[in-house]
Amino acid sequence: MNLMTFQQKLDALVTKNNSLVCVGLDSDWEKLPEIVKKEEYPQFAFNKAIVDATHDLVCAYKPNSAFYEYLGSEGIRQLKLSCDYIREKYPEIPIILDAKRADIGSTNKGYVSYAFDYLRVDAITLHPYLGAEAIQPFLDRKDKASIILCRTSNPGAKEFQDQIVGGEPLYKLVAKKVVNEWNKNGSCMLVVGATYPEELAEVRKLAGDMIFLVPGIGAQGGEVEKTVKAGLNSKNAGIIINSSRGIIFASKEADFAEKARFEAQKLQTEINKYRYVR
Amino acid sequence: MNLMTFQQKLDALVTKNNSLVCVGLDSDWEKLPEIVKKEEYPQFAFNKAIVDATHDLVCAYKPNSAFYEYLGSEGIRQLKLSCDYIREKYPEIPIILDAKRADIGSTNKGYVSYAFDYLRVDAITLHPYLGAEAIQPFLDRKDKASIILCRTSNPGAKEFQDQIVGGEPLYKLVAKKVVNEWNKNGSCMLVVGATYPEELAEVRKLAGDMIFLVPGIGAQGGEVEKTVKAGLNSKNAGIIINSSRGIIFASKEADFAEKARFEAQKLQTEINKYRYVR
Repeated sequence: MNLMTFQQKLDALVTKNNSLVCVGLDSDWEKLPEIVKKEEYPQFAFNKAIVDATHDLVCAYKPNSAFYEYLGSEGIRQLKLSCDYIREKYPEIPIILDAKRADIGSTNKGYVSYAFDYLRVDAITLHPYLGAEAIQPFLDRKDKASIILCRTSNPGAKEFQDQIVGGEPLYKLVAKKVVNEWNKNGSCMLVVGATYPEELAEVRKLAGDMIFLVPGIGAQGGEVEKTVKAGLNSKNAGIIINSSRGIIFASKEADFAEKARFEAQKLQTEINKYRYVR
Repeated sequence: MNLMTFQQKLDALVTKNNSLVCVGLDSDWEKLPEIVKKEEYPQFAFNKAIVDATHDLVCAYKPNSAFYEYLGSEGIRQLKLSCDYIREKYPEIPIILDAKRADIGSTNKGYVSYAFDYLRVDAITLHPYLGAEAIQPFLDRKDKASIILCRTSNPGAKEFQDQIVGGEPLYKLVAKKVVNEWNKNGSCMLVVGATYPEELAEVRKLAGDMIFLVPGIGAQGGEVEKTVKAGLNSKNAGIIINSSRGIIFASKEADFAEKARFEAQKLQTEINKYRYVR
């Protein structure tokens, strides 16, 4: 039984693999290579091949629940098979469930069980809008990470996140609350999109060494250099840089896993280029 | 094939059943009566009995996805069986999936398919934090309803929702944006908790005749009289008043469905008492 916390697993793997790359397992059924569509469980077969090809290059995997819910119970089964496979074959790799949940307190227990007891992932992404009291069932799981949406990577993020509250944008208030009030168990992290490097730098100023999950590199247009420079913490790490489509769908042919490995290596190298400078 | 929109189905059923009651199918596996736990699909068996006992008293059903995800793929299967049963046996009853989703645009397509193509429900609840651009795939479904969290029913709702933005609380800004900008297809609704009747009255002032989903009656402590008086629109309706635990878990014995019917009738009557006054 693995009693390491998310943070401990992450720190160990960032060092071992010398990587801040998270591969997003956004295994959209419609985009899968024809060769895996013939399998009984195409999303699982695809994920297995991607994971086997990239496990020594990553600091985490991040399946997004939406792409599995798309297929209903059959998709959830394939998500579970994928999580089980990673955990059993590569127990050192933390799994982040990108599910963007948050309901009222008593209801969240269902989502806590889905993520941490059924899928048995190490972390989950959460909406802040209902406040800390609502997401307490997640925060109570000290061994897991609660990753709160702060500044998201989508073009319309600013509609609410840049609204001025007490002289500063809402996303900064979210960051401050998470850093100063919600993080009693040391299990909180923040989502800050790579598509907004200036905001990423602002959040880093507020957040000490807290870990950020940084989506938006690759297909969404975020730039590696700006992201790394804006996001690194005092330990030359502290950012989990996610790329999904840019890695997993690099090829739709039989060489898809090999091409995914190439793209993961490329991203790992580019990120490290901006980490190891003085 | 039923081409009625959510709003049309709702209006017709509010009139036919003379009811603003929504029964929340929060069929928490741990709380199910022993008698249904023996069934192959306990959550489905339970929901079927509740629906058969209450279908002529409600204006909608609202399963919360969390209680089904709790069991993983087996739970999702039971949620689908439940939605299929309602739609086939009682096609006039709208189904609201309480899932509190919202991801970036391209990812939301997975959730749109889960709700509207797989479960084939009529409406879904959504977080506002990522803005309208992100949830556009939901808003594009003109035949369905997008129900945006505005003022939630939980005790800690105010942490962000009462933050002052441009001179007014954030929840009012959410309401104004949804009413004035997001509702181009006329498919938007708002979640406003019964536990905050003053805020409910404030949102009603801003929202014209827009429909509100109002959770928090019963177990959460919301009062019917205050809720109805604060929430009714100019058509003496416009609020879908949800009760979950107070109805479905009124008894844990073999008479659970009968007792649920009694509680639904009681709530229907109490709500109507405050609707039909001058």
